[in-house]
Amino acid sequence: MEYINNPQEIEKRSFEIITEELGRPLPKEVAEIVKRIIHTTADFEYADLVEFKNDAVAKGIKALSEGKKIYADTSMIKVAVNKRAAEMQGVEIVNYVHDEDVRAEAAKRGVTRSTVAMEKALGDEAVGIFAIGNAPTALYRLIEAIQEGKGKPDLIIGAPIGFVGAAESKAALDALDALEVPYIRINGRKGGSPVVAAILNAMLYQLGREW
Amino acid sequence: MEYINNPQEIEKRSFEIITEELGRPLPKEVAEIVKRIIHTTADFEYADLVEFKNDAVAKGIKALSEGKKIYADTSMIKVAVNKRAAEMQGVEIVNYVHDEDVRAEAAKRGVTRSTVAMEKALGDEAVGIFAIGNAPTALYRLIEAIQEGKGKPDLIIGAPIGFVGAAESKAALDALDALEVPYIRINGRKGGSPVVAAILNAMLYQLGREW
Repeated sequence: MEYINNPQEIEKRSFEIITEELGRPLPKEVAEIVKRIIHTTADFEYADLVEFKNDAVAKGIKALSEGKKIYADTSMIKVAVNKRAAEMQGVEIVNYVHDEDVRAEAAKRGVTRSTVAMEKALGDEAVGIFAIGNAPTALYRLIEAIQEGKGKPDLIIGAPIGFVGAAESKAALDALDALEVPYIRINGRKGGSPVVAAILNAMLYQLGREW
Repeated sequence: MEYINNPQEIEKRSFEIITEELGRPLPKEVAEIVKRIIHTTADFEYADLVEFKNDAVAKGIKALSEGKKIYADTSMIKVAVNKRAAEMQGVEIVNYVHDEDVRAEAAKRGVTRSTVAMEKALGDEAVGIFAIGNAPTALYRLIEAIQEGKGKPDLIIGAPIGFVGAAESKAALDALDALEVPYIRINGRKGGSPVVAAILNAMLYQLGREW
């Protein structure tokens, strides 16, 4: 059997196909992100679902270039972000969802571990980007805490996926417009960890990439 | 803000919504898998894309119940599979793609690390399930090696995602029908690590689950 097996070639050709099939130009500052989401999901619907608010891309890239930490609500985000590209910027991804103290407190209060992990991250000043790919509760908790004046992230990526609360939690980000908090969200039910990682990788690659 | 925040409740309600919106009954032996894929992706198209061949579900569940290893072509599959459910069966997920010897050999031969990692896995007799969520080359290499008589997995999950070679690599699984190799595949461009993990989790949960 014959097939292209050079990863760089495969990615280049994939982006050509995506650009062609999209069939419409995208604003320059978001094009790389939108195309990388489609590359990750093979789902063109994301071009219509992704939304960028409050200078999100510029603010996100700035935070990454300053080596701010990323809080992620799933381990999948952590493994799906390009490790070398993150290291080049000195960016660390933190995730408290499996910590024993988080597990214990969640069980005690009868809430998700994601909610408790999010509260723990809010106490960490070095965290610049909040990347939420799974838990609507984490996104709700984050929005509430920001409204309570407990912090102002450089960027929120709001992409919980699912049938119960996901779409609503992302719609709730509207409340942060008044505070000019930058966010990128996936409207509706879709989203998830690979989509979050695609957004982060697209921003990181604009700062540098090794093959 | 008010929202359901008990994970078990959320999952139960999600599956009710999925069953309702699907609007048609599914064969009993595949229903849990199909619904869990939709739960993971929020994409009903998967009900038409997923295909089960050569007694795939029964053979896969049997392999898991015997504690056979799963070879996975991505770290995302490893973190997305329910760790406790796998441990209950004594199932380990192996992944050689980041091994130094694999990296070095791939660079030397000018092929993907996935291809080399797959060859390494074929030498491991304890591996029962091959779960491919990313690399068409890994799936091609696996199919070739089986045709060469180098082994017969209990189950292949063929779900590479993407625009170059992914759909073709999954179509190539047809060649294994003559050898009666069980496989589950996602036809077309879609698929990916979360989908692979959803399939594995759906089978594991039929053997037991802790909350």
